[in-house]
Amino acid sequence: MGVTIKEIAVICGVSPGTVDRALNDRPGISEKTKAKIIEVARQLNYQPDYMARSLAKGRTMTIGVVLFDLYNRSFAQLMNSIEAECRRQGYFVDLVLTNKDPDNEKKCIEHLLHRKVDGIIIFAINYGEAFDHYLKSLNVPVVTVCNRVSGDWSYIGIDDRKAMKEAVQYICGKGYERFVYVCPPLSYRGKTNIFTQEERFAGCLEGLKECGIHEPPVIVTDKDYVGAIGRMSFGDGEPRTAIVCSCDIYALEVMNHLKGRGLRIPEDVGLMGFDNIDVLKYVTPALTTVEYDVEQFGLQAVRCAVEQIEQGSAAPVPLLPYRIIAGASI
Amino acid sequence: MGVTIKEIAVICGVSPGTVDRALNDRPGISEKTKAKIIEVARQLNYQPDYMARSLAKGRTMTIGVVLFDLYNRSFAQLMNSIEAECRRQGYFVDLVLTNKDPDNEKKCIEHLLHRKVDGIIIFAINYGEAFDHYLKSLNVPVVTVCNRVSGDWSYIGIDDRKAMKEAVQYICGKGYERFVYVCPPLSYRGKTNIFTQEERFAGCLEGLKECGIHEPPVIVTDKDYVGAIGRMSFGDGEPRTAIVCSCDIYALEVMNHLKGRGLRIPEDVGLMGFDNIDVLKYVTPALTTVEYDVEQFGLQAVRCAVEQIEQGSAAPVPLLPYRIIAGASI
Repeated sequence: MGVTIKEIAVICGVSPGTVDRALNDRPGISEKTKAKIIEVARQLNYQPDYMARSLAKGRTMTIGVVLFDLYNRSFAQLMNSIEAECRRQGYFVDLVLTNKDPDNEKKCIEHLLHRKVDGIIIFAINYGEAFDHYLKSLNVPVVTVCNRVSGDWSYIGIDDRKAMKEAVQYICGKGYERFVYVCPPLSYRGKTNIFTQEERFAGCLEGLKECGIHEPPVIVTDKDYVGAIGRMSFGDGEPRTAIVCSCDIYALEVMNHLKGRGLRIPEDVGLMGFDNIDVLKYVTPALTTVEYDVEQFGLQAVRCAVEQIEQGSAAPVPLLPYRIIAGASI
Repeated sequence: MGVTIKEIAVICGVSPGTVDRALNDRPGISEKTKAKIIEVARQLNYQPDYMARSLAKGRTMTIGVVLFDLYNRSFAQLMNSIEAECRRQGYFVDLVLTNKDPDNEKKCIEHLLHRKVDGIIIFAINYGEAFDHYLKSLNVPVVTVCNRVSGDWSYIGIDDRKAMKEAVQYICGKGYERFVYVCPPLSYRGKTNIFTQEERFAGCLEGLKECGIHEPPVIVTDKDYVGAIGRMSFGDGEPRTAIVCSCDIYALEVMNHLKGRGLRIPEDVGLMGFDNIDVLKYVTPALTTVEYDVEQFGLQAVRCAVEQIEQGSAAPVPLLPYRIIAGASI
């Protein structure tokens, strides 16, 4: 712990009030005494007690961030931009990771409450009325990112449904006849918050319908989705098939599997991802995917949280833009 | 902000001291009153004021983490494990990112001091005596990760020099004659902390010497290292060349470039990375690299910081293990 105002006062032979006046640039002190006190404070590396100040103000100048993990590239990029914007705005960041475990998420939130964060940015794994009610009981501004909890919370994201619908329409335009949709999180329907994934899936169905594809897609929700793809036939004699993955990371695993089987992408089977994670640039063939600016998510989330904290409420944030990246895999 | 002890006291018609006794399980209160107070506290979602408690204790139960960014896979994995271990040990995590800017790093540290963190885990970009002295002036336990600052600080890392030396010996064993060493950070020598990179480079030179390769390696420190590689010839009529990259991320960029030129790896030119970042599994040919357990770095760093915070000092942490991963690129 650094030196205190009282200690500086003793060293300078003045009262603590005089030290306070000098350090906070208030009147009632001679320039000479002020200069001396500031010099002593500098030499002793005095740090103002922001925490005590925060207590007086009733604020900790801290935003709590609740994410699944940092393994997913998108989450790491999101956290990177949240940290940068928080620091720009003078806020501290307390980071907690839930590992997609609903019970753990509540513990993480309690953890942040103990710290008396001024606001919370959350990529929620819990959902439903009970969780919505729980969040309200916290009496802390909350901004939801990617996974919606209810219409009562600020939300930062893209129109995932529309984006996937357009992606599927793009694929249909390439003459594919059979569709496989890979999304393991759908198996958590009714258990955890899979809002984003539900939206993407609904968009896929809408896109197929609008393109006049009446055969429903083969839906792969197995945790071992690669094993499930492994039991399917593609190429010669099979209908022209596109494997649509709800995240790039699934598409990369599927791509490895298809290559291992000696299948050519897209000649034998088409492949589409979603997210445009930065590692795609090292992968051949270039994956066709949907891009959005995840750093904008972080920026907007922090701005929205700060607006709520400092002004009591925030204007709704419009859904952010996205675009289809035409790679070489469809 | 939640309900306070005073408010609970008014609601229950008892003194704040009685509420305190009930909530902290101290004697001098009837079971009936205690049960009533606890129930009221629960209903009103009472949260103990950890911050006020921390003030009394002189601790904030917070560890500040100073990293470059979260874009690099290794850093994201490191942060993931630091967060998990901190939470296990009851500590909060304040994260600040320096973007490899020495001035910014000092601002980040000030930021953490304002928050009165109990300890700091740092992947430092500053170095030298002045910085060492600065860190000491903070009077806060510090654990350095990857980049050493001085022998006075706890350090978590591998023996980078020995690891690179063994990697180069492995490459020499495959009959390579010419060596190119890619390490842009070496151009920051004398400007920022490149301890890890210096060690790896020294290991490369030692390995070549021990293998009897007297021709010095071509050292590429350009920011545009891919452009520099682009001006070199490989394959037919050229000596058998291995490009040794000090990080996987450089190796992946070089691999993209070599593939673009139609060069075969390793037939026309060998390629080696370092770090074994997880995205390597999607890349062909499999990159030969050096692996270490970055999550152990996080775990050990937190344990070491907590030991210092709670016991005043910590036992030195032995250097962590590593191993060469024989891919298909050498």
